[in-house]
Amino acid sequence: MSFTRLDVCVGLLVETFNMYAKKDGNASTLTKAEAKELFKAELKGTLVKATEEEETDKIFNELDADKDGVINFQEFVTLVGTMATLCHDYLTELGELAKHELPAPRQ
Amino acid sequence: MSFTRLDVCVGLLVETFNMYAKKDGNASTLTKAEAKELFKAELKGTLVKATEEEETDKIFNELDADKDGVINFQEFVTLVGTMATLCHDYLTELGELAKHELPAPRQ
Repeated sequence: MSFTRLDVCVGLLVETFNMYAKKDGNASTLTKAEAKELFKAELKGTLVKATEEEETDKIFNELDADKDGVINFQEFVTLVGTMATLCHDYLTELGELAKHELPAPRQ
Repeated sequence: MSFTRLDVCVGLLVETFNMYAKKDGNASTLTKAEAKELFKAELKGTLVKATEEEETDKIFNELDADKDGVINFQEFVTLVGTMATLCHDYLTELGELAKHELPAPRQ
């Protein structure tokens, strides 16, 4: 059985969330401390100043849509959706997407 | 520079959408024909009966939130968010996520 690009993406999302969410024994949500660890390790270079305290607080509060103080999986995937949309809009603006194929993922 | 898991995921989302969206010369949206090609190639095995005409129509209509007859990038990423959430909920129910690490992505 071979995996499609979207299968790989789903796997990466579930794996990344789980790696950090389970640290406190409850794998269903990211606490603020777990979320900050995730942001620092997984967003380096992607979001400006993601390693700064004030910025991570802001990202956390924006993701925590129901304001229960933790981030559930559905709230987490909106982060990646937003990152991907920003990346897509940026490349569209540069005219990069119309010009050529992006590099194929490694098999 | 090394890529994080979320960087890879963003790249895969942008690449997948672009591969199909540009086929008609307009890379900013998926027409119904382009979306159906994407579903058939990228969702095989993931969503039950995704290759059947009726099912692809249903997925298309659900994704087309603004009902303009095409799928933009933001509408597309909700598909992957939903797939990932279903996968996460399923693994949580099985107790798989608390038990062990998922396999690491290949470097």
